[in-house]
Amino acid sequence: MPRHSLLIGIHAVEAALSQRADQVRRVVLAAETRNRRALDLAEHARGSGVPVETQPRAALDRRCDGERHQDILAEFEARNLFGEKDLDNVLDGLAAPALVLVLDGVQDPHNLGACLRTADAAGAGLVILPKNGAAALTAVARRAASGAAEVLPILQATNLARVLGRLKERGIWLAGTSDTAGRSLHEVDLDGPLALVMGSEGRGMRRLTAESYDFLLRIPMASTVSSLNVSVATGVCLYEILRQRRGE
Amino acid sequence: MPRHSLLIGIHAVEAALSQRADQVRRVVLAAETRNRRALDLAEHARGSGVPVETQPRAALDRRCDGERHQDILAEFEARNLFGEKDLDNVLDGLAAPALVLVLDGVQDPHNLGACLRTADAAGAGLVILPKNGAAALTAVARRAASGAAEVLPILQATNLARVLGRLKERGIWLAGTSDTAGRSLHEVDLDGPLALVMGSEGRGMRRLTAESYDFLLRIPMASTVSSLNVSVATGVCLYEILRQRRGE
Repeated sequence: MPRHSLLIGIHAVEAALSQRADQVRRVVLAAETRNRRALDLAEHARGSGVPVETQPRAALDRRCDGERHQDILAEFEARNLFGEKDLDNVLDGLAAPALVLVLDGVQDPHNLGACLRTADAAGAGLVILPKNGAAALTAVARRAASGAAEVLPILQATNLARVLGRLKERGIWLAGTSDTAGRSLHEVDLDGPLALVMGSEGRGMRRLTAESYDFLLRIPMASTVSSLNVSVATGVCLYEILRQRRGE
Repeated sequence: MPRHSLLIGIHAVEAALSQRADQVRRVVLAAETRNRRALDLAEHARGSGVPVETQPRAALDRRCDGERHQDILAEFEARNLFGEKDLDNVLDGLAAPALVLVLDGVQDPHNLGACLRTADAAGAGLVILPKNGAAALTAVARRAASGAAEVLPILQATNLARVLGRLKERGIWLAGTSDTAGRSLHEVDLDGPLALVMGSEGRGMRRLTAESYDFLLRIPMASTVSSLNVSVATGVCLYEILRQRRGE
């Protein structure tokens, strides 16, 4: 995962400049732009001491890979992205009881972004992604994350099974979802240190057998469909954990 | 909303033929196809008495508007789509206590589909959409709905405010979400007849003022982001209602 990320479009650049200007390495403006908001934003960046470079719009198009950039982008120095060697340090820094979200192979960048946004909103302190077999933290995913991708600690695991084992050693219980689990998520006590493992879209758990989990949770399905979108399922589970922890 | 819908791709056509063959008016197969599953499915359709027509692949491309069709599509006669005049009849048929989801102007077809899928999973008996200013029930939305768009009763309102007024007359309480509400969704009793009104992405409520609601619910935001994706927010609210109703 590159530590230098590209933020695309007025909203993303504006948010980074207002909240984390010291992490914005450079703003790139399309030379042809007449977009008043993009021009104002570039002016604001200069005023904050951030270098602004103008490039032909076609150069921005190439860097953004089809994503709509509104004539402005920013190179951002991420400080929330970690590797497997950082795991213990990151866990040491989590508020107790720990709440970790593990996304095992979410493929779609919109879903990845929505999961990050949800994790941040529900108070997860860390998201763990596998290095291979998952959507990358692209501009599309960042946009869908609505700011969470720049602040939420995200750890990329080379060997996800090993990382999950380390979580257990550290006293963090593993919870997964299964449509054949005996108890619904509302019937299980979820107020201890917990890592919620969500499988890839439509494929459920991959790295672990059902026996590896401390808890298996069933999300009730009241009618015809047999599963939820992965970001919706993540939200339903994390907010139930939040509810139980708040004693509501 | 057209009563005759297009189902696109092997999975959608297969599901319709196995569950609702009597509502499949026609299967269209690409003349050039060598896709074994598409060919088998067309054969299965013929065996079930459903007419199969072969057309050039380019004709399928045109009808599918860029969506991947895998050389097969079906014309489907929807029986779960209603207009405003059907409201009282549909309400009469709901299981008690009523649970209605109102989507006020969801723009993105993936979000619309995920909301329908979630509504079905959480046991909502009816989804109400405004006729204007919202995403249509396109093939993209149907695919994201994962089967819910063909079975869940969906009512399209010409005048959404009037429909909401009629719900209140019928004893159904209106609940909306607001980030300034005094009580979180976990602190409000949600086990009566209820219509949950979700606003469009990022814009919140539109048709009604805060005073029109019987309940305003706050979804807790624990960290940086200020809102959830609309389908995630819908899932969090509907599953809390389900939890309360089951007494878990």
